[in-house]
Amino acid sequence: MPAKNILFIMFDQLRWDYLSCAGHPHLRTPHIDALAAEGVRFTRAYVQSPVCGASRMSFYTGRYVHSHGSSWNNVPLKVGERTMGDHLRDAGMSCWLVGKTHMKADDEGMARLGISPASQIGARVEQCGFDIWERDDGMRPEGPDGLYDPHGAERYNAWLRDKGYDSANPWHDFANAGREEDDPETLASGWFLKNSRKAAAIADEDSETPYMTTRAMEFIEQADDGPWCLHLSYIKPHWPCIAPAPYNDMYGPEHMLPVARHEREHEEAHPVFKAFMQSRIGRNFSRGEVREAIVPTYMGLIKQCDDQMGRLFAWLKDTGRWEDTMIVLTSDHGDYLGDHWLGEKDLFHEPSVKIPLIIRDPSPEADTTRGTTCDALVEAIDLAPTFLDVAGGEARPHILEGRSLLPWLYGETPDWRDYVVSEYDYSLHPVASELVDTPSEARLFMIADERWKFMLAEGMRCQLFDMESDPNEYIDLWNSPEHAEIIALMYDRLARWARRQSQRTTRSDAEMLARRKSSKGVGIVIGVYDEDDIDPHLTPFYRGHPRPS
Amino acid sequence: MPAKNILFIMFDQLRWDYLSCAGHPHLRTPHIDALAAEGVRFTRAYVQSPVCGASRMSFYTGRYVHSHGSSWNNVPLKVGERTMGDHLRDAGMSCWLVGKTHMKADDEGMARLGISPASQIGARVEQCGFDIWERDDGMRPEGPDGLYDPHGAERYNAWLRDKGYDSANPWHDFANAGREEDDPETLASGWFLKNSRKAAAIADEDSETPYMTTRAMEFIEQADDGPWCLHLSYIKPHWPCIAPAPYNDMYGPEHMLPVARHEREHEEAHPVFKAFMQSRIGRNFSRGEVREAIVPTYMGLIKQCDDQMGRLFAWLKDTGRWEDTMIVLTSDHGDYLGDHWLGEKDLFHEPSVKIPLIIRDPSPEADTTRGTTCDALVEAIDLAPTFLDVAGGEARPHILEGRSLLPWLYGETPDWRDYVVSEYDYSLHPVASELVDTPSEARLFMIADERWKFMLAEGMRCQLFDMESDPNEYIDLWNSPEHAEIIALMYDRLARWARRQSQRTTRSDAEMLARRKSSKGVGIVIGVYDEDDIDPHLTPFYRGHPRPS
Repeated sequence: MPAKNILFIMFDQLRWDYLSCAGHPHLRTPHIDALAAEGVRFTRAYVQSPVCGASRMSFYTGRYVHSHGSSWNNVPLKVGERTMGDHLRDAGMSCWLVGKTHMKADDEGMARLGISPASQIGARVEQCGFDIWERDDGMRPEGPDGLYDPHGAERYNAWLRDKGYDSANPWHDFANAGREEDDPETLASGWFLKNSRKAAAIADEDSETPYMTTRAMEFIEQADDGPWCLHLSYIKPHWPCIAPAPYNDMYGPEHMLPVARHEREHEEAHPVFKAFMQSRIGRNFSRGEVREAIVPTYMGLIKQCDDQMGRLFAWLKDTGRWEDTMIVLTSDHGDYLGDHWLGEKDLFHEPSVKIPLIIRDPSPEADTTRGTTCDALVEAIDLAPTFLDVAGGEARPHILEGRSLLPWLYGETPDWRDYVVSEYDYSLHPVASELVDTPSEARLFMIADERWKFMLAEGMRCQLFDMESDPNEYIDLWNSPEHAEIIALMYDRLARWARRQSQRTTRSDAEMLARRKSSKGVGIVIGVYDEDDIDPHLTPFYRGHPRPS
Repeated sequence: MPAKNILFIMFDQLRWDYLSCAGHPHLRTPHIDALAAEGVRFTRAYVQSPVCGASRMSFYTGRYVHSHGSSWNNVPLKVGERTMGDHLRDAGMSCWLVGKTHMKADDEGMARLGISPASQIGARVEQCGFDIWERDDGMRPEGPDGLYDPHGAERYNAWLRDKGYDSANPWHDFANAGREEDDPETLASGWFLKNSRKAAAIADEDSETPYMTTRAMEFIEQADDGPWCLHLSYIKPHWPCIAPAPYNDMYGPEHMLPVARHEREHEEAHPVFKAFMQSRIGRNFSRGEVREAIVPTYMGLIKQCDDQMGRLFAWLKDTGRWEDTMIVLTSDHGDYLGDHWLGEKDLFHEPSVKIPLIIRDPSPEADTTRGTTCDALVEAIDLAPTFLDVAGGEARPHILEGRSLLPWLYGETPDWRDYVVSEYDYSLHPVASELVDTPSEARLFMIADERWKFMLAEGMRCQLFDMESDPNEYIDLWNSPEHAEIIALMYDRLARWARRQSQRTTRSDAEMLARRKSSKGVGIVIGVYDEDDIDPHLTPFYRGHPRPS
């Protein structure tokens, strides 16, 4: 029997290799490790796009970006796209949100179809299919043009003010800012990386990660008998990169993973990657003092996340939920942190596109795999069909393009995909101006199998890396004659993938098959010369229309 | 100034070469010829899928089948897809239907989003964006499992009964049936091709084509001052293949185009094409008596269509509409009529996939091109953006994948596409069982440029024809070493096309560009080390949140 409930935990910008269970030599994450020790850690899990919004829309819809169209942050998910919430509710499981989705609603499409955001249907369309316990995308910055998100961190800010954090925007002024040492009245913004090692002007327990953990507990505590799926979605360790004490000071430059970069990456850079390297982000993350300022705090923020996992898991055990709830822990993408002369995410090197993914299934069927790793090629879009499988719903491969991971959890070896796909729309990035004529051309594709990683920038040359002999992805084999065959195979895979039928979502294969068999009995017979060409029992229908008796 | 109104006339299954203006040596279509003489005849117009439903959904949405997903007849067009009706109404032009659309509504999607078919929005979603003067898909067959379409030809049947055609289903018993010569009381169904040369048991003026013509006049007569677009969509010369006198007897086998087929087509047949050849339809249409039974009547039906065009155009001139209405005349696909050992449509030889397309634009800008032909590679999806252009709406290339044809009508030579694309989903066809494992794999693609036609069946070998040296498409060059390069180019074109961004319909390129430029002023600054990295006017926003004054 599968688990009853699902706790779907997502961190934001958490690198796959910044966990001790994944081999980090200095960062200790015992609680996440313990989850892995009771579940399966997937070592080759990839996002469908290494940027928050597009990646999440793929997680939630179970569909490639090329299918759902929400290709970057704040490109609205078009009305009509279904999400895990829709699928799970069809199977009798509720689906709730605490935290971030990065959902941008298709207000225009809703208005066009007369769907009111005030209705339950409308509220769900607007919120990416989730019912809302708390939506908090973790962002309330402000600039001369106003607020980035007028509803950003609204409830959290009110809660902070209630606790005495006296400010119009305590999210910024306390949770994401430190204080100047020589003048504690002066704010040191977390937006400036030089401030990353300062302690945020907030108590650990009042900062965002513990707050969201508490909110999740509140949801679970009041949840009916279930079954429910709760998406607990943290903003951290995403920027602003500043942590409350003691996490700001737990790690130093000596604890960082060595930077993975090579001079030849500059010399042989693909035009798109070169432009990203040359951007402010690429240049700054290539500076020693920048890395030394932010990476230790990034690690501290992860340590805080792990401590909150410890608190949450202990509470789940106390309340009995540990035994009937599948726990899924992942991230929406990684972070370059200066590797490959890059910062942030966006591109397809492993630190950016690969994610941690740990699933603990409490059911006895999963006992055989506890504490193991799984090297199968997993995509973020596999979670929605996995959850539908847990909820007991029938698979919907004509809509959900991923596949249930339950067989892997149960120790089976299903027929599986040969490669994963990721995409990136860089049309909103300033570098696009120099590289392509129109926003629609500003697109990147990745095909990766167990050994090879192939990347294609629309209208430009490809890239190819041998992750076996060159795990750091330094040597671009795009013009290596010995690799012409593998490059041709990768082009072909990308083409097949792009041709896939992703939009016939109104008819399943099973329905198509049923219609194939039943297309004869309603009077349409084509290419029939005479009675000899048809089944005799049909003949009366062509002699004259039978009158109702 | 563009035309005020649009009369968008579609025939069903009308071959591009069964018109005298397109060179048919025996079939005279003077009224359609006269339209061409005052407009432009496009000689390379292709449908996006050679089957009614999928083709029409591409005409109406302005999008490839791969984009809208309604891949065959009665695969519902998913809720959220916009059609020419939506686009034209946004630009202030109404959009009405008289006749056939083959629209199958996404009832499940509508229910899921709470869209009632009783509302105006719901009625339009259900009817593919058209307001309905009369919907009549021209089909009311019946078999042991019941009616093919319970609402088929409803009003037409009632009208016939009022006129004394005494039957539960006069559509079948009179309009689409003849009488046995030796026993006039005995019905000879139009479904049996052996009956095709018999006169339908109905007066010409009561048959479907004149009826629909009258209905269009009634619409236009009452139409407000406009602007309007009327889709006048005939079922003919589509089967059942039987015509009222005198059209049943106007042509004989001596007037048929010679059959275009070659023994080598059997010998070298691609597996999919071979299966279609071996189907009942392929076998029957390869028989001489079958062709001689149906082709003359097919020609008679076209002759009737042309006569009705004469009647309609004369009436438009009388009422003044000829001078303010763009007239577009086309078909949803062709008919093999035994060519290539095939019947019906479905596949990509010219008789099936190429369509007649004539546009008469009354505006003075179009005077320079009157009576000319245009060899540009045109796709059915070009009509929706053409109409939006006529209505004065801004282009929507992020939604509408075709391009306005107005420049061609105005004598300009726009930058244009290098190839056209067509697709076919044969998953509902019985031959799919032998050829592919799952319905989703049962898919065909065509890429055609001015010379080469390339076809790919998913999972199988390609085909290539040189339409210059082999206009009849007999010689499949798929394994010709001299053509390896052109085949590689065609694979690449298909891959690029398949990768296109077709689903980012919630943001135009212009909006993406605007956002690229304006992404800085709301407080998010990434990869900034210190104040030196940002514009000084932004600095205050990071020192502390400015309080409202």
